[in-house]
Amino acid sequence: MTVIDIPEGSPFGPANLPYGVFSTPGTAPRVGVRVGDSVLDLAVALDEEVFARPTLNPFMAQGHARWVQVRERITALIAGEVPDAAVHPVAEVELHLPFEVADYVDFYASEHHATNLGRLFRPNAEPLMPNWKHLPVGYHGRSGTVVVSGTDIARPNGQRKAPDEEAPTFGPCRRLDIEAELGFVVGTGSELGSPVPCEEFATRVFGAVLVNDWSARDIQAWEYVPLGPFLGKSFATSVSPWVVPLLALEAARVPTPEQDPRPLPYLREGEPWGLDIDLAVDWNGRRVANPPYREMYWSPAQLLAHLTVNGASTRTGDLYASGTISGPEKDQRGAFIELTWGGKEPIEIGGSERTFLQDGDEVVISATAPGADGTRIGFGQVSGRIVPAEGGAR
Amino acid sequence: MTVIDIPEGSPFGPANLPYGVFSTPGTAPRVGVRVGDSVLDLAVALDEEVFARPTLNPFMAQGHARWVQVRERITALIAGEVPDAAVHPVAEVELHLPFEVADYVDFYASEHHATNLGRLFRPNAEPLMPNWKHLPVGYHGRSGTVVVSGTDIARPNGQRKAPDEEAPTFGPCRRLDIEAELGFVVGTGSELGSPVPCEEFATRVFGAVLVNDWSARDIQAWEYVPLGPFLGKSFATSVSPWVVPLLALEAARVPTPEQDPRPLPYLREGEPWGLDIDLAVDWNGRRVANPPYREMYWSPAQLLAHLTVNGASTRTGDLYASGTISGPEKDQRGAFIELTWGGKEPIEIGGSERTFLQDGDEVVISATAPGADGTRIGFGQVSGRIVPAEGGAR
Repeated sequence: MTVIDIPEGSPFGPANLPYGVFSTPGTAPRVGVRVGDSVLDLAVALDEEVFARPTLNPFMAQGHARWVQVRERITALIAGEVPDAAVHPVAEVELHLPFEVADYVDFYASEHHATNLGRLFRPNAEPLMPNWKHLPVGYHGRSGTVVVSGTDIARPNGQRKAPDEEAPTFGPCRRLDIEAELGFVVGTGSELGSPVPCEEFATRVFGAVLVNDWSARDIQAWEYVPLGPFLGKSFATSVSPWVVPLLALEAARVPTPEQDPRPLPYLREGEPWGLDIDLAVDWNGRRVANPPYREMYWSPAQLLAHLTVNGASTRTGDLYASGTISGPEKDQRGAFIELTWGGKEPIEIGGSERTFLQDGDEVVISATAPGADGTRIGFGQVSGRIVPAEGGAR
Repeated sequence: MTVIDIPEGSPFGPANLPYGVFSTPGTAPRVGVRVGDSVLDLAVALDEEVFARPTLNPFMAQGHARWVQVRERITALIAGEVPDAAVHPVAEVELHLPFEVADYVDFYASEHHATNLGRLFRPNAEPLMPNWKHLPVGYHGRSGTVVVSGTDIARPNGQRKAPDEEAPTFGPCRRLDIEAELGFVVGTGSELGSPVPCEEFATRVFGAVLVNDWSARDIQAWEYVPLGPFLGKSFATSVSPWVVPLLALEAARVPTPEQDPRPLPYLREGEPWGLDIDLAVDWNGRRVANPPYREMYWSPAQLLAHLTVNGASTRTGDLYASGTISGPEKDQRGAFIELTWGGKEPIEIGGSERTFLQDGDEVVISATAPGADGTRIGFGQVSGRIVPAEGGAR
């Protein structure tokens, strides 16, 4: 038996307890909880078959009462001794995609991001579209290409046409970008024809992950009219390996910024679900932005209420992301197209100038939030390195 | 033992052999093939566990060589006697969603449809967007709300704002529409980073279904800028219960209409995959349109090549649909917004005038195509009846 050591100030202390799926050499992927610099093997520690699975989905599907109960059991366990066989150093495990993604939806919930992109793409018009303050704008993405942090990202090929070109050409993306986002994972699905009101957010959503919604701006700009982004996004979306339970985010709750005009009744929250989460974006090791989640106009409870108000069902494993998180300050912008103002204001990275991503570049997004015991809890990170396009330069 | 009777002129003769998932009272859903007015229970007739499943996915994942082999075995079986227990009258079985939908993509591949909608929505501009003839425009839809034919369709609630209204209101959709489409089902998936060239269409795509992409035009019109359709589509998408194997569609192959400008190399087909399929749309029993699939600008092989050219992976059960099928003639339009020209030219249905769908209305889409033996093979139908919105009128 052993006591799990939790280093002073660890973002993975008892107030966090995020879930993931891990394996050690020669063993099958299974569910674990991160504690300090260790992974607690729940299949061993709690001896339940639901944790011996390669995905969190079966556990998430058991519902909110079970999430509370298991969290209490883990809290009690790590306060004492656990079997040696249930503990692995995090540096010695492989982390897998923590859940099977059912449907993936991406929103556009930052007023600062939407305003910046409006200014960049439509310089002579109102930056925000007329619908933006009435509903959370969103669209469906490709769930089959959601990958876990650390997966290499191949630069996508596709059609691109600059405004001064006569016809599109085919080749590797020239304006490869990131979007720093938070993603919410549905644990308990809802039936077709049964909208999920804001009040059910906390019992249906299991937890949150960091999301990097890699974006090929040149491909997107050419293809997106009139049906929205498609191949400019669908080549890869990275998520962090640890799902931070919503139960760990109570101390992070804050009101959203004031919403004016007042939203329609189905979008009104009884209790606020804004979240005081600080993100950080590192580009080849240089901190280039600190996007503040508390600045997001629409809360994740409002996003879920909107997503289902037409009667759409949800399923265990549905992932919906916030859209790029950008604050009012320049160094709070969560996409390079905003940070470099469309590529016109390069950033100095390790002695060279960058606008969009080059092959070999690595981006790491991390985040912390206030925890219930006065510590800061961590989301860990979502990272990815750009590798050359298939077929090389064309 | 029994010989399966195939009525003269049946669209489900030996040249068709579509697959579905069925159950009889008190039994579990399993894989069957439609032959005449009967369903051949493959779990009994071929005695293989892969057909005892509630979805076609495991069989589809076995790949093209197996699809050919099983089709040959079924052809031989139905030429002779089969066990009585393997045959059920189709009128006595329940038909289920035939496959588990992985990702769902909807395209916009009819030039006539895209032109009509451009004229309706942007009367003072070029109807086709500049990208339209260079790439098949498409977007991701919600796979969790794909339902089988016969499922009632609840009128969705949502935000709607007419151009002359100051602010949006919430309530039941007032412009509920259909889109008559063909959907293609991926049998053998492809890896991340491995585009699927046009030549691999026939070995990766298992078959085709009819699709009704129900559309809430007023919700869609308000929400869709700039990220595309979302709640205007995600409440339900209906598919026919029988998946017609691509192997049954060889005799239906025709060239696509001339493509000018010539597509980029990755979109060029070696052999044509246009399809000479005739659809029919019945509204409360009145035939209102006969959309011709052969008029589609982009072929399904081109759609798959485009969908994956950025390296996106595909999975068994991916569904991608053609978009509304409309021909050049007025009675060939596959959506009511086109047939009634935005609601300005009502259609007389059973003595009353219709523009968009009313509660209680039923729409049935069916299709036939030339079969290899000179008969016409059938897709069966995709049907749905509109039921009142949740919460009633608001």
